[in-house]
Amino acid sequence: MFKYPNGRAYEKKENERILHTRASDTYGNRGMTLEADLNETNAYYLAQGIAVIHKKPTPVQIVRVDYPKRSAAVIKEAYFKQPSTTDYNGVYRGKYIDFEAKETRNRTSFPLQNFHEHQIEHMKQVLAHGAICFVILRFTTLDETYLFDAHHLLEYWERKQQGGRKSMTKAEIERHGHLIPLGYHPRIDYIQIVDKLYF
Amino acid sequence: MFKYPNGRAYEKKENERILHTRASDTYGNRGMTLEADLNETNAYYLAQGIAVIHKKPTPVQIVRVDYPKRSAAVIKEAYFKQPSTTDYNGVYRGKYIDFEAKETRNRTSFPLQNFHEHQIEHMKQVLAHGAICFVILRFTTLDETYLFDAHHLLEYWERKQQGGRKSMTKAEIERHGHLIPLGYHPRIDYIQIVDKLYF
Repeated sequence: MFKYPNGRAYEKKENERILHTRASDTYGNRGMTLEADLNETNAYYLAQGIAVIHKKPTPVQIVRVDYPKRSAAVIKEAYFKQPSTTDYNGVYRGKYIDFEAKETRNRTSFPLQNFHEHQIEHMKQVLAHGAICFVILRFTTLDETYLFDAHHLLEYWERKQQGGRKSMTKAEIERHGHLIPLGYHPRIDYIQIVDKLYF
Repeated sequence: MFKYPNGRAYEKKENERILHTRASDTYGNRGMTLEADLNETNAYYLAQGIAVIHKKPTPVQIVRVDYPKRSAAVIKEAYFKQPSTTDYNGVYRGKYIDFEAKETRNRTSFPLQNFHEHQIEHMKQVLAHGAICFVILRFTTLDETYLFDAHHLLEYWERKQQGGRKSMTKAEIERHGHLIPLGYHPRIDYIQIVDKLYF
């Protein structure tokens, strides 16, 4: 399993196909990645006219491109770049929404190394301009997904910077976070939590 | 000169370096691409705490990645994908801002083929959710850059769909658009127009 510079796992085409097959079977959410669940949820919000939220493309530094006759340009050499923002943003009820989604296999804590300095910086910047900003945290082994306001993440990040623990405990996430009920359609109905928290 | 599926020109690394050299010389804006000007402007807004607006990465479908020992992963085969949104979005004074930027070498009209169906769809969607949405149009030969509200673009797009002309005339753009004064820092101070129009 290759990892992006931002720590997110990279899946090859073949894996993606397997995941999509799983998604349509009757076993429900288990086995779907958080990213696949969010893409499905955002597509549902878009189709239903609820919100317009997209995942940003993975930033790539393109070095060499071939232009074969009568067919599409082929990128022959490129590298993954460090993203300078969070992965998801968009508009809901006129407001700017911005979030990052991360998962861990841990059961008792969420490692802060899942986030990177530039993403934390970006969260501070959008908050300063009145954005709704949060993270979606999944404990994959427990199948629990939380919406966690960015202000709290920034507090725990600051604790780490001050020499404190390098993770948030499960109890801290339960205290400040909001468990998102997992459904079938949409899978992660985070907008219902956004409604309660920010409007 | 290769073009992306969305019609935007693709510059190789070498060209980019040439452009950056030009940017720092004393001849001012001429020769800078609209994209380079906007990146510089958005970086200025970010550094000054005025707005957080980023260009989205170019979407790429990654097919094959090599993982050489002791060095970064190399993308060996990938293709340009059609973007499903506009290129720029972010937050300003709590509001969601969304725009697309296009340039033409024409002097008397702006071809609507510069925009694609899915971008028009995206603009309709974000407008329905209360976004501030516009396009930045540059007549490169005239060195004139306009902020043009998306509602007007949608009207002219509709005229085309009804069998009307395939472009907007320069006069139409002057009537509904707002000439953005070009400066040195920032180069395209579009936020001053946003202030007047939407707040």
